[in-house]
Amino acid sequence: MRILGIDPGSHVTGWGVIDKTGNYIRHVAFGEIKPAKALSLSEALVCFSESLTEVIRQFEPGMAVVENIFYGKNVRSLIRQAQVRGVVILACCARHVPVVEYAPLEIKKAVVGYGRAEKRQVQAMIKAILKLPQAPPADAADALAAAVCHANFQKEQRL
Amino acid sequence: MRILGIDPGSHVTGWGVIDKTGNYIRHVAFGEIKPAKALSLSEALVCFSESLTEVIRQFEPGMAVVENIFYGKNVRSLIRQAQVRGVVILACCARHVPVVEYAPLEIKKAVVGYGRAEKRQVQAMIKAILKLPQAPPADAADALAAAVCHANFQKEQRL
Repeated sequence: MRILGIDPGSHVTGWGVIDKTGNYIRHVAFGEIKPAKALSLSEALVCFSESLTEVIRQFEPGMAVVENIFYGKNVRSLIRQAQVRGVVILACCARHVPVVEYAPLEIKKAVVGYGRAEKRQVQAMIKAILKLPQAPPADAADALAAAVCHANFQKEQRL
Repeated sequence: MRILGIDPGSHVTGWGVIDKTGNYIRHVAFGEIKPAKALSLSEALVCFSESLTEVIRQFEPGMAVVENIFYGKNVRSLIRQAQVRGVVILACCARHVPVVEYAPLEIKKAVVGYGRAEKRQVQAMIKAILKLPQAPPADAADALAAAVCHANFQKEQRL
């Protein structure tokens, strides 16, 4: 089973692909989509959508995983992030990739064993679990963590 | 100038198309996109995206107008609405239709002359302004109101 983890962010959207065979997890690829800061919201949404569609075309995942949105933010950034998340979910469904979601706490717990882990701890554990030569950047690590979480729990409820 | 107004909602997205020639405004079409309640979030986003793309293909607007998101809601519905809004903005940009936004207060003021007008007042004024045989349903009326607002103010800043 090939799993695409996505961390939809207002300015950076991380992604990571893993393969799960039996109980074995293998890293395939990761990256970050970063529209230029000068782009308008519309242009950034188009960039996220096209880049993610290209990732899906290239790696053909059977499943996509996104984090729940974290409610603690201010409303402005919450709205911006949710707009990106809508576009991300659409990009998956338009290519017939079903999407599941996990809470940030579930994902951190699955990867670090501790729900309030810091970004750096997630990066270090992802490096160890996937046997990477170095830790991926923070947003790609979060995306890979979401994928690893789903590899463990295999929640069935689709978004 | 042909203007597409859109009222992106979690469960119903209204749309309305008007033509502006000089100071004259003419109604072209309106409608509401209502994914079946049984659909999942992903399926609803696909439905909104495809239906709106079809509207854009059919009417070829030169400009699209959306309301700002209203902050007063609870966070859950705010997130859901913002996800729909992201998909709506993307659908416009993917067909090269620039998008502008207005605050709900600006739109109501432009149409009813009073920022805190109720839905029914907006529907009645839209019926009168566009010389419709009857008032459009609430979400289509809001979409037409956004289009009429832009016909009056022609804000230049794109989303």
